[in-house]
Amino acid sequence: MNDREAAARLVNPSVVIGTGLLGASIGAALTRAGVEVHLSDAIVSNARVAASLGAGTVAKADPDAVRLVVVATPPRSLSAVIGEALDLYPNAAVTDVGSVKGKVLHQLQATGRDLSRYLGSHPMAGSQHSGPTSARPDLFQDRIWAVTPHPEVSEATADRVRALIELCGARYTWFTPEDHDRAVAQVSHLPQLVSVLMAEHLLGIPTGHLQLAGQGLRDVTRIAGSDPDLWEQIIAGNVDALRPELEDVRNRLDELIDALDDPAHKVRAFLQRGVNGTRQIPGKHGAPQMEYAKIVIELPDAHGALAQLFRDFADAGGNVEDIQIQHDLVRKVGYLAVSIEPGMARQVSEAMQAAGWNLA
Amino acid sequence: MNDREAAARLVNPSVVIGTGLLGASIGAALTRAGVEVHLSDAIVSNARVAASLGAGTVAKADPDAVRLVVVATPPRSLSAVIGEALDLYPNAAVTDVGSVKGKVLHQLQATGRDLSRYLGSHPMAGSQHSGPTSARPDLFQDRIWAVTPHPEVSEATADRVRALIELCGARYTWFTPEDHDRAVAQVSHLPQLVSVLMAEHLLGIPTGHLQLAGQGLRDVTRIAGSDPDLWEQIIAGNVDALRPELEDVRNRLDELIDALDDPAHKVRAFLQRGVNGTRQIPGKHGAPQMEYAKIVIELPDAHGALAQLFRDFADAGGNVEDIQIQHDLVRKVGYLAVSIEPGMARQVSEAMQAAGWNLA
Repeated sequence: MNDREAAARLVNPSVVIGTGLLGASIGAALTRAGVEVHLSDAIVSNARVAASLGAGTVAKADPDAVRLVVVATPPRSLSAVIGEALDLYPNAAVTDVGSVKGKVLHQLQATGRDLSRYLGSHPMAGSQHSGPTSARPDLFQDRIWAVTPHPEVSEATADRVRALIELCGARYTWFTPEDHDRAVAQVSHLPQLVSVLMAEHLLGIPTGHLQLAGQGLRDVTRIAGSDPDLWEQIIAGNVDALRPELEDVRNRLDELIDALDDPAHKVRAFLQRGVNGTRQIPGKHGAPQMEYAKIVIELPDAHGALAQLFRDFADAGGNVEDIQIQHDLVRKVGYLAVSIEPGMARQVSEAMQAAGWNLA
Repeated sequence: MNDREAAARLVNPSVVIGTGLLGASIGAALTRAGVEVHLSDAIVSNARVAASLGAGTVAKADPDAVRLVVVATPPRSLSAVIGEALDLYPNAAVTDVGSVKGKVLHQLQATGRDLSRYLGSHPMAGSQHSGPTSARPDLFQDRIWAVTPHPEVSEATADRVRALIELCGARYTWFTPEDHDRAVAQVSHLPQLVSVLMAEHLLGIPTGHLQLAGQGLRDVTRIAGSDPDLWEQIIAGNVDALRPELEDVRNRLDELIDALDDPAHKVRAFLQRGVNGTRQIPGKHGAPQMEYAKIVIELPDAHGALAQLFRDFADAGGNVEDIQIQHDLVRKVGYLAVSIEPGMARQVSEAMQAAGWNLA
């Protein structure tokens, strides 16, 4: 029996409550690992859709047999649903995937329940899409999945939550609930509110001025388009950690306004600190940021052009690390920027030109 | 003689001063249109590189013959270089492509020069790449290009600047210099500073917390990584328009901090205003935002896989509108998200699955 089989045995059978993107993806990952997964959702059709996509079954579980319950409901209902799960499944470890941990734990503690079978967690995955139809078993592959231990957690509970994370292909890390909530306030909730602040500002400016908007504005405000219902719940759950971060930003914004009197020194220093700040962010999936060379190829809007392009690209020895397409809606021509290892850039560029492609 | 030939004749020959990304791209567009373009740059090798890429010649122009001068130097030097160009090329219209217009105009007016031959402009194009090697004649294709008339501008000058814009394939629009500077303060300079504010904040948080960073933080802070030298100059040139925008953001940030006491109502309303704000932004290239269907395909890291994929995609009748690749650095497998017309999504999905691809 290998590690994966041992992990699957530890959590078999499992219950997933809440079958949105996260719950359905967890169900799919566990099912793929051979675990029997029972799905439920306040909206029954959601659970049925998730089941039809391979996330498990909507058949009821034998409560005594269940070894793991994953609660993936909206933030507002988490502590109530976790509490009910602890009562209903007396032999199960219970975890949740909510993005704020401290408040839920305190609410549970306030009920006086034995919490040795509860261990909160938070996978760093998601998507602008929501709902079970966007679910996939690989959603968590190589992503960070934080757990937030508290003093009462039993070893058996911790083992089962760790097995869940392993079966989802994610990378385990732990924080105290307080540190976790401070961290997500800083790297997730604060950027969300900053993005909204910028987007909200656009309501007050003349429409004609927005003609001059570029990609920068779109990037800064992209997440401001997220579901306000979900975010209101997330923020309501983390107000205490968020307040000092917002106050700090407000104080530095005051300093920036003062700095406008001396752009050459003070604004320059502020901009440089921003550049340094961006360098603090680790690369995708926690890997160090790698620099790739970019080859930009003119792409005719002809049937099969992309196939021909990638055939030639493969022949040229290029291993594609990333792709971006810029499609011109009017001229019906586009540019494809292909990122490759820097050492290959010259050889591949020359071979592509020799094959008749125009490089920009 | 067609319109394009007439436009080319109006600005032939031209001089481009400053051969970074914008200047070299303008040179390339004019050259492609049959205009004789003379390039110069304070860094002579830059002009030579631009010339070698087809942006024009480094040979000196006959000053009396020049009909158009485009100044594309860094912001700080604009008014001096424009003034010199007006003196040196007595029969030329002179424009610049700086991103702030009022201050430069006032500096020129303060010199007492006749400004009938000067008309400032600002193309909405650029890239995170800079320098002539990223230049391309299509950089401005279908982009907005604003001109900022002032009372002294002659009709002949306006005609030549309009010809330039036409030959670059861009879309002409006009603003007063004051309105232009307010608009770019709102949709470009303010988002830049908001992004920097968020990025700078990261310097004060524990490195371990950044493990929990997701795509949202990366998007909000992307432009904060831009060249601080360039941005210091841009901001220094537009302080008066920026200050009230920043003050407004500061006031609404104060309101947001107060709103944390009542998340269900006040934060909820704030988040909804953010969603509404993002809807103010027009789509790429000023076109209305179009909704595409997205098909996500598992992509093995095998030689030629992309070529095969796009061959099958073309066979399935799919017309690719956009591509995003998610490359998994650890597992050596990736997902390719392909955007296509919604009406084709089902047919293409089924055909791709029939051809053996795993859809996520």
